[in-house]
Amino acid sequence: MTIKYNNVYVNGTGTVTGPYESNGPLSKYFDKSYDDLYMGAKTWEQAEIKMLGDSVDILLSKVKKLKDHIDLFISGDLLNQIVVSNYTAAYLKIPYIGIYGACSTSAEGIILAASLINSNQINNCICAVSSHNTAAEKQFRNPTEYGAPKPHRSTFTCTGAASIYLSNKKDKIKIEAGTIGKVVDSGIKDVFNMGAVMVPAAAETIYRHLTDLKREPMYYDLIVTGDLGIYGKRILIDYMKTEYGFDISSNYDDCGVMLYDINNQPVYAGASGPASSALVTYAYIMNKMKKNELSKVLMVATGALMSQTTTNQKMTIPSIAHAISLEVVE
Amino acid sequence: MTIKYNNVYVNGTGTVTGPYESNGPLSKYFDKSYDDLYMGAKTWEQAEIKMLGDSVDILLSKVKKLKDHIDLFISGDLLNQIVVSNYTAAYLKIPYIGIYGACSTSAEGIILAASLINSNQINNCICAVSSHNTAAEKQFRNPTEYGAPKPHRSTFTCTGAASIYLSNKKDKIKIEAGTIGKVVDSGIKDVFNMGAVMVPAAAETIYRHLTDLKREPMYYDLIVTGDLGIYGKRILIDYMKTEYGFDISSNYDDCGVMLYDINNQPVYAGASGPASSALVTYAYIMNKMKKNELSKVLMVATGALMSQTTTNQKMTIPSIAHAISLEVVE
Repeated sequence: MTIKYNNVYVNGTGTVTGPYESNGPLSKYFDKSYDDLYMGAKTWEQAEIKMLGDSVDILLSKVKKLKDHIDLFISGDLLNQIVVSNYTAAYLKIPYIGIYGACSTSAEGIILAASLINSNQINNCICAVSSHNTAAEKQFRNPTEYGAPKPHRSTFTCTGAASIYLSNKKDKIKIEAGTIGKVVDSGIKDVFNMGAVMVPAAAETIYRHLTDLKREPMYYDLIVTGDLGIYGKRILIDYMKTEYGFDISSNYDDCGVMLYDINNQPVYAGASGPASSALVTYAYIMNKMKKNELSKVLMVATGALMSQTTTNQKMTIPSIAHAISLEVVE
Repeated sequence: MTIKYNNVYVNGTGTVTGPYESNGPLSKYFDKSYDDLYMGAKTWEQAEIKMLGDSVDILLSKVKKLKDHIDLFISGDLLNQIVVSNYTAAYLKIPYIGIYGACSTSAEGIILAASLINSNQINNCICAVSSHNTAAEKQFRNPTEYGAPKPHRSTFTCTGAASIYLSNKKDKIKIEAGTIGKVVDSGIKDVFNMGAVMVPAAAETIYRHLTDLKREPMYYDLIVTGDLGIYGKRILIDYMKTEYGFDISSNYDDCGVMLYDINNQPVYAGASGPASSALVTYAYIMNKMKKNELSKVLMVATGALMSQTTTNQKMTIPSIAHAISLEVVE
């Protein structure tokens, strides 16, 4: 389901990361980075809350707004009951919509915000996401003290928080359209193979987006997913070609691959987590758009929708992808 | 933040419950009830998934629509990573937005759907919520085998699923306005006192709604919260009077109190869970509206935004409330 917008602009972003991300190739694009995973807080969960609050504070100062000027805060994260977003909303005291779409949350929030802004139901909105490597590992997999080894095809939950301020005030980058995805369950149960799990959802959403808007893949200077990792990235290129007849091999990349130096950092197949697509898009891709090095970008955020409980009950892993079309305003 | 709608109608609802709810005073209003908490499934989580799927299937048959006719499915529940909604979305194959607002989820979903329908960005939407007593107890509190006693002021997570079909097709009941709440944290840490935890958020949202629309409490034939329970209900009446100067003592009730026969069922201070406000509103209150026994209703869904992890870390419990104004169309 695709919605077009003609009045929604990106006026600013705020990005905060942990140490692995600031040691990666995109380091210089982030607004703030912490050297360790506790970030001065008592627990990893509280560190993630601190990071998300930081990202919104940085964003507010960049767009020169006070909290009182913000109509709506839409946020989501990986922790149970999206507590990072909830506590950040308590700190911000802005009307709040909590959402969950695993790593697809960034695009989900932007689509909701853009729909409300484009129809003049609100004037502006801050959308935010976060993830924290060890807080997520502890919750979704084994106690981190085990140091359990994982297969190479695993992804590495990134540590970061990213916020974006959208409004109807004209600016360099606009949200041109959004596609809300369907949940796809291809029957995979392997929680260490998220790339493969999410490929059919990513492909379905890209296909739906292009078909709804009567576009070819080459309409976009760049199509990025977040996050399939190095193996999922290869699978998606094949899958788009064989299932839908679309060739994305020349203008497609994956945020999970872009965030790290995969060959030299201990991050398995690349980054995952809601923050990954947002960090790469807001900090790096939008920077290239501002410099006119990219004009049209399709960001496809992908989420694997399992929980620790459904994994223990040997259930399959459903997945979803939402897409947003970003465009440089002439 | 209040949004007014002039083109959003309730065309149908689907309600499914467990045994405690069908033994309560509203039994005859529900579409379907199960006699036991497993409902023929292997686990409580899978029972909840079955129940939510049932409620949507019942709704689709009542409004005479196929899944393909539905533009959007918005859903949320209490289980980690809202897996009940995710698996139901995988079954439905309708474009999906996953949300989380604890027991405020019902109103949160309706506000998002109404905003998208009112601005003609979508034509129709199904919003759904669910909760399951033992699945939630197991996740949020102690292993159910402990049979741990709880204080009287505790609430009892109801077992049920409720879906509502909204569209721009004129019908007897309209969604007239929605108020998106702010998160309020009044510093309470007692997870057995949810009524008290959520009162300040409920009061803030009712006050904001009435003030934004320049209305007095008596504008509404009925103001209902979901769910404060018997103690929270009394506190809210006092709190509205002393903090905001609004007297709601004569036209206010609480869905958590209405769902059960509190004096004769083992449900402590009353129902909680996202399904509670939805079951009572869709099945009972809307029935009264259709019979013209009620004309204007303000439904205020309240959510406590903690997780098991934040409880263990002795953090305070933030809460939120979203409100929707329902009106009989003349």
